[in-house]
Amino acid sequence: MTKIENPKRLIQASWGGETIERARHFLEHRTTERILAGLIMLNALVLGLETSQTLMKSYGWLLEPMDHILLGIFVIEVAVRLIVTGRGFFRDPWNVFDFIVVALSLMPQTGPLSVLRALRILRVLRLVSAVPTLRRVVGGLIESMPGIGAIAFLLALVYYCFAVMATNLFGADVPEAFGTMGRSAYSLFTVMTLEGWNDLADKVMEKHPYAWLFFIPYIMTTTFTVLNLFIAIIVTAMQNEADKVREAEAKEHREEQEAIEELSEKDSVILRELRELRAELRALKGSAGS
Amino acid sequence: MTKIENPKRLIQASWGGETIERARHFLEHRTTERILAGLIMLNALVLGLETSQTLMKSYGWLLEPMDHILLGIFVIEVAVRLIVTGRGFFRDPWNVFDFIVVALSLMPQTGPLSVLRALRILRVLRLVSAVPTLRRVVGGLIESMPGIGAIAFLLALVYYCFAVMATNLFGADVPEAFGTMGRSAYSLFTVMTLEGWNDLADKVMEKHPYAWLFFIPYIMTTTFTVLNLFIAIIVTAMQNEADKVREAEAKEHREEQEAIEELSEKDSVILRELRELRAELRALKGSAGS
Amino acid sequence: MTKIENPKRLIQASWGGETIERARHFLEHRTTERILAGLIMLNALVLGLETSQTLMKSYGWLLEPMDHILLGIFVIEVAVRLIVTGRGFFRDPWNVFDFIVVALSLMPQTGPLSVLRALRILRVLRLVSAVPTLRRVVGGLIESMPGIGAIAFLLALVYYCFAVMATNLFGADVPEAFGTMGRSAYSLFTVMTLEGWNDLADKVMEKHPYAWLFFIPYIMTTTFTVLNLFIAIIVTAMQNEADKVREAEAKEHREEQEAIEELSEKDSVILRELRELRAELRALKGSAGS
Amino acid sequence: MTKIENPKRLIQASWGGETIERARHFLEHRTTERILAGLIMLNALVLGLETSQTLMKSYGWLLEPMDHILLGIFVIEVAVRLIVTGRGFFRDPWNVFDFIVVALSLMPQTGPLSVLRALRILRVLRLVSAVPTLRRVVGGLIESMPGIGAIAFLLALVYYCFAVMATNLFGADVPEAFGTMGRSAYSLFTVMTLEGWNDLADKVMEKHPYAWLFFIPYIMTTTFTVLNLFIAIIVTAMQNEADKVREAEAKEHREEQEAIEELSEKDSVILRELRELRAELRALKGSAGS
Repeated sequence: MTKIENPKRLIQASWGGETIERARHFLEHRTTERILAGLIMLNALVLGLETSQTLMKSYGWLLEPMDHILLGIFVIEVAVRLIVTGRGFFRDPWNVFDFIVVALSLMPQTGPLSVLRALRILRVLRLVSAVPTLRRVVGGLIESMPGIGAIAFLLALVYYCFAVMATNLFGADVPEAFGTMGRSAYSLFTVMTLEGWNDLADKVMEKHPYAWLFFIPYIMTTTFTVLNLFIAIIVTAMQNEADKVREAEAKEHREEQEAIEELSEKDSVILRELRELRAELRALKGSAGS
Repeated sequence: MTKIENPKRLIQASWGGETIERARHFLEHRTTERILAGLIMLNALVLGLETSQTLMKSYGWLLEPMDHILLGIFVIEVAVRLIVTGRGFFRDPWNVFDFIVVALSLMPQTGPLSVLRALRILRVLRLVSAVPTLRRVVGGLIESMPGIGAIAFLLALVYYCFAVMATNLFGADVPEAFGTMGRSAYSLFTVMTLEGWNDLADKVMEKHPYAWLFFIPYIMTTTFTVLNLFIAIIVTAMQNEADKVREAEAKEHREEQEAIEELSEKDSVILRELRELRAELRALKGSAGS
Repeated sequence: MTKIENPKRLIQASWGGETIERARHFLEHRTTERILAGLIMLNALVLGLETSQTLMKSYGWLLEPMDHILLGIFVIEVAVRLIVTGRGFFRDPWNVFDFIVVALSLMPQTGPLSVLRALRILRVLRLVSAVPTLRRVVGGLIESMPGIGAIAFLLALVYYCFAVMATNLFGADVPEAFGTMGRSAYSLFTVMTLEGWNDLADKVMEKHPYAWLFFIPYIMTTTFTVLNLFIAIIVTAMQNEADKVREAEAKEHREEQEAIEELSEKDSVILRELRELRAELRALKGSAGS
Repeated sequence: MTKIENPKRLIQASWGGETIERARHFLEHRTTERILAGLIMLNALVLGLETSQTLMKSYGWLLEPMDHILLGIFVIEVAVRLIVTGRGFFRDPWNVFDFIVVALSLMPQTGPLSVLRALRILRVLRLVSAVPTLRRVVGGLIESMPGIGAIAFLLALVYYCFAVMATNLFGADVPEAFGTMGRSAYSLFTVMTLEGWNDLADKVMEKHPYAWLFFIPYIMTTTFTVLNLFIAIIVTAMQNEADKVREAEAKEHREEQEAIEELSEKDSVILRELRELRAELRALKGSAGS
């Protein structure tokens, strides 16, 4: 962090606060945001076109430099943002995401790290952090997570138990599917998607005729739990709405009660006045009678 | 547009506004709507029967002319509606739909355009624009779209990223599935439907043993997002209902507050009267005492 | 109907209304209902055991007569119910269901009608009409239908269009899947369940490379519509609940408004009394002053 | 039960109530709960590692004793809990679950019972009973069951009918899939998951060309019912929320009505006072006039 902070102070010293302020203003401007979103989409297109070998042969001289220039712009943008925001930069998870995605593209992409070349396309996901609507949608999806966290952990636990059981029970007889924990986990994932589960179950049932006692409970438990994950999202949203209705109601109720109370106080004043009046009248009567 | 407008004016001039009015009345009549719906269903039946070569051999002399006559009726109906409505015709998307579907049937259907012959059946979808209930249902489905627009765009973005990645990573080794962007997009669509995804993954994993790091996140991300598309529809509907409840509540609250306020004013009048009475009594007392 | 009515009158004449009343009382008794439910479940078990050839060889002498005796009891039960209820019998759809299911079992089950023998098991579904809780659940499922009727019709319409299109476009080249309307309808149903759709699409795409333009829109349209069928059920249930909340609210609001109005009238009475009092005081003052 | 009770009394007698109290306090302490959860997870890890033969060769001397020690701790924990809680122990289903899971691990795991060795991993599910959040989630899942009980029974009934029918109709011709009730039940379960249903249907349709009249209604009925199971969970949750809103509303309404009633009584007092005042005034007038 200090390494990043130091240049900031250096630059702040040489640029002065005003320049920083102007840069921040420039970055947060709507037009800048739109141009950035446009450049990201252009980059998405360029990276898409680069997958075609025919196009690369004819237009490679154009596409590759374009990609480098766009990356350069993104590097500068993130760097400026980093300098401008300073220490707070890494507190915003979107900034961290932008930083990682851009940093990945700068790493060497040869030899064992050639897979990083394919990860360049993740740069396109920066569109999410650049477009406020998408940021809100992703934020909403992530917000819906905690409500399903416990149920997801439960699913993972059940899944782990079944994987260990499958490895112990069927590992020796069907090693290609259940030989190791890894294979069992993968095979059980395919079973959870229901894809080809019956072929796998048939293969196991040749040696273990009661294996359906494993597969059918597994399928029923996991599908039930997965579907409950989504039901939990709906039900949580529903409870939030019902809470809002109840809150609005309670507020209105409080206001009405206050109004009625005020009324009641007014009535008390009336009653007091009336009683005093009566007392006065009685006094008058007494004085008149006397 | 002017080409369409001109004959309208021409016809309006020769027919007079009254004829136009009568034609509009005729088109909007419930009986006309029902007959039209019946003719569309008859056309659906005819086009269905025409797919059978046995039936075509025996009754082709009947079915083909029937289809032509029905098409003729639809052409006349749309043309009359176009003349009657004038400039506003293309503002209603249902009219645009009717126009395109009927126009498609009038285009030459030979040679490279022979595929248009199969699109004749789309005429049957005119039933949706002809029957108000269906029009409302489709309207509802389309209305539920904007709520899911951002999430659908997000899905498209993720899908695109995965397609580019798959082409880069597996294109060279599994060209029949991931050789080009188009093939990757198609293969990833089949993976999203979960159909045969494990066979494809197995094929890829022969060369790239860590390909499950690609497929499992892809499946989890896309299924989660697709399911959230549908959850979004439910949640939006739920929020609308909760909003209606809250609005009804707020209206009732306002009415009650107003009633209480009125009551409060009445009480104020009572109090004033009472105080004036007391003052008068005191005056009386004074005068009586004097 | 008259044929059924006549014996009823005949029996009513000979039995007298009292016997009829007693029979109805007997049929509607909870114990009778429970015994009937028990007999239906016993019949379900017997029919299940009869599927085993081993068991039939050893216990066929017991199972077959048991089935016949149980059927006899059901025939008597439905007949008595028919006589007791009279004309109104066929108005209750559950009665119609019971009648059909029992009548099916009485039809000859040999030769071309041997399939009816397998339909005997439908008798077990009488459990639904015999157990009130199940009757309510099925009633609920059927009630949820009208809300989805229009959307189901829309799905059928889209499905029909795609079937006609598939027959026209692919019928000549892939006759085993799309040769006739029936085959197309069946193939498209399998595609809608997503099962093996990619193999079928691959086969078609060998001859029609752009067939994905048919299959992908078909899958997206039908899955979207099917899922909306279920969303419609949830949303309808939601609207009913919100309506109930709103109604309860409106009723409470009316009550409160009435109470406030009553209060307001009381205040008016107070004000009138007060004004009269003041007038009287003034009169007193006048008389005292005079 | 008495066998379990007796040692408890024996121990209670020798230990004294104080020791029991201290043990209960220790067991319910948060730190104890956390350590227990940690030990269960460690056990999960150990059992997972034990599935690897490579690891067992190198670290078997460590893993096996660890597993035994952990099991020993769990046995002691459950035993102490049993002694401390006494008779009430088996009333809590979580305790029953813990007891069974630990007891399973103590049974001989050789010969025909070697399958019990694989069930050791179920011990990991004790994490659910040890972590309050997970216990609540599972409690919630189980609570949502009664709402779907009737619909699940209906599904089972329909499933049974179809299984009997399939055995009767297709048993003779496709014995490997429908030869016995058990095979039919298994085959129909795979059809319900839609996996490979079209291959199975094709095989049956070779001999029974109208078998689609069996498969398509079966798929539609079961998918509709299964989806309604989940819709029932959502709708029940929704009704609970709406009920809460209505209850809150009704309570507020009662409070407001009471407040208004109080006001009304106050008004009545005012009116009475006013009338008495008027009567007094009239009496005064009378006495003044006299």
